Amino acid sequence: MYGAIEAGGTKFVCAVFDDTMEVLESVTIPTQSPDETMKATIEFFSQYDIKSIGVGGFGPIEINPESERYGEVLNTPKLKWRNYNIYKGLKEAIDVPIIIDTDVNAAALGEYMDGHGIGKRSVLYITIGTGVGAGFVLEGKTLFGLTHPEMGHILVRPIEEDKFDGICPSHGNCLEGMVAGPAIEARYGKKGHELDLEDPVWDYVADYVGQACMMFNLILSPEVILIGGGVSQQEQLFPKIRAAFKKHMNAYMDHEVLHTDLSDYILYPKNGQKAGLIGSMHLAKKAYEDSL
Amino acid sequence: MYGAIEAGGTKFVCAVFDDTMEVLESVTIPTQSPDETMKATIEFFSQYDIKSIGVGGFGPIEINPESERYGEVLNTPKLKWRNYNIYKGLKEAIDVPIIIDTDVNAAALGEYMDGHGIGKRSVLYITIGTGVGAGFVLEGKTLFGLTHPEMGHILVRPIEEDKFDGICPSHGNCLEGMVAGPAIEARYGKKGHELDLEDPVWDYVADYVGQACMMFNLILSPEVILIGGGVSQQEQLFPKIRAAFKKHMNAYMDHEVLHTDLSDYILYPKNGQKAGLIGSMHLAKKAYEDSL
Repeated sequence: MYGAIEAGGTKFVCAVFDDTMEVLESVTIPTQSPDETMKATIEFFSQYDIKSIGVGGFGPIEINPESERYGEVLNTPKLKWRNYNIYKGLKEAIDVPIIIDTDVNAAALGEYMDGHGIGKRSVLYITIGTGVGAGFVLEGKTLFGLTHPEMGHILVRPIEEDKFDGICPSHGNCLEGMVAGPAIEARYGKKGHELDLEDPVWDYVADYVGQACMMFNLILSPEVILIGGGVSQQEQLFPKIRAAFKKHMNAYMDHEVLHTDLSDYILYPKNGQKAGLIGSMHLAKKAYEDSL
Repeated sequence: MYGAIEAGGTKFVCAVFDDTMEVLESVTIPTQSPDETMKATIEFFSQYDIKSIGVGGFGPIEINPESERYGEVLNTPKLKWRNYNIYKGLKEAIDVPIIIDTDVNAAALGEYMDGHGIGKRSVLYITIGTGVGAGFVLEGKTLFGLTHPEMGHILVRPIEEDKFDGICPSHGNCLEGMVAGPAIEARYGKKGHELDLEDPVWDYVADYVGQACMMFNLILSPEVILIGGGVSQQEQLFPKIRAAFKKHMNAYMDHEVLHTDLSDYILYPKNGQKAGLIGSMHLAKKAYEDSL
């Protein structure tokens, strides 16, 4: 058996699963202080004989395995977690091989292994929810460099008619500042799911996300772009995002996939909200295989 | 001995070199029709007993070795080269292992192996010249996906005081449309090197390039960003680009390298104009090693 943790900002989903990827037991633990949440997490896993653990964690977090700070939560607004090391916390209690990656890299890996990324060389997974982030997998490896990417904060071009200034504390009207759930709510004082499907906000959001997909295409050239997270559950967004992508790209890139209606290029993850947990399960398997 | 070609849009630089990476002979051939240019290229290499060839070529070009069209020049405005296959043209005349990559990927590899990328996991190489492009190397491998990246066409935010509309036929004021050599010339009818160092155009160019470096940092997180090409020979640009990067990032990313003056993070390539050829030489060595 193996263990997987989708370590989110509001809850930790912990699962124990077998070689066939069947989840045998799982538990959801609220994300409180590291003391409380990690204690409950370790208690859960201690009931089983697990061979390894994979973690897809909220960021910023150190994911470079060469770093002494591997697994440390970095400069997060969740002050109780700042500088807490998830890797060390787990490893001291359960001495098995452990891989820590970001939640979005884990979700990209989940789709690469078991979703819309099967048979593709690369997968980009974007989440649009409380925040905006993205993970990237290339030939089975998740991307990190100096730090892990923070793709949610790229600058998009404001739409002239859109008078909203954005809510990112660092960049104002960057992608996250304009399209994350709290940004949509800040426009009207209503949550996204309370808004009319015809509200012009959806055109704005789709344009900004379409611009972002253009940037991601031109820079990473992913073979598929999956958009998950709470906001992406607004299905009406997808045709609008694809149209915005096409408008901004202006047929610049010549590839057969980009000449289609893009419904197989920019789409909702096959595993939906489970992409992150499934990816964390694959991280666990990889941790075990790498240790052999 | 090995062969390397920096196959540019105006000239092919061909070199023969040995195991110590010393160039023994080289020749520069103008880029005319494939018939003429490839004939001269093949004649040059046919004089030597070479084990392999590496090519860093102008794009768009198919660089996925799994593709049947590997080495084919794609939708280029150079009509004589459109759909000409450089790989096949070389392979039929000189049957040795051949690797074809983009000129900018080759330059990134050149810096990764023998320049400012030594000891780093990843290198981004941007060229700002007749056009704008970028190549990326991660752990020794150059990046491609659906196609090769076309990072020069990302959208930057127009500066309010800048009244220039850009000259990209596809995107108007994308990065290339605003900062490539012909864009700078189109503003005033003067080439960049004829302009005053204090001309406000350099502030605009630096701001757009600083924005681009922000996008590249947030998406790829390269360990170093090298900027080559004709426009980057304007040394006054570098401090301005670093300042623009810092302004737009607004201290969002927390990494010690980003807290410095960035003179070791955003800089001119160590190999200058030779980065592409040196990278093509490494492609040749890799082609030979892969064939063993």
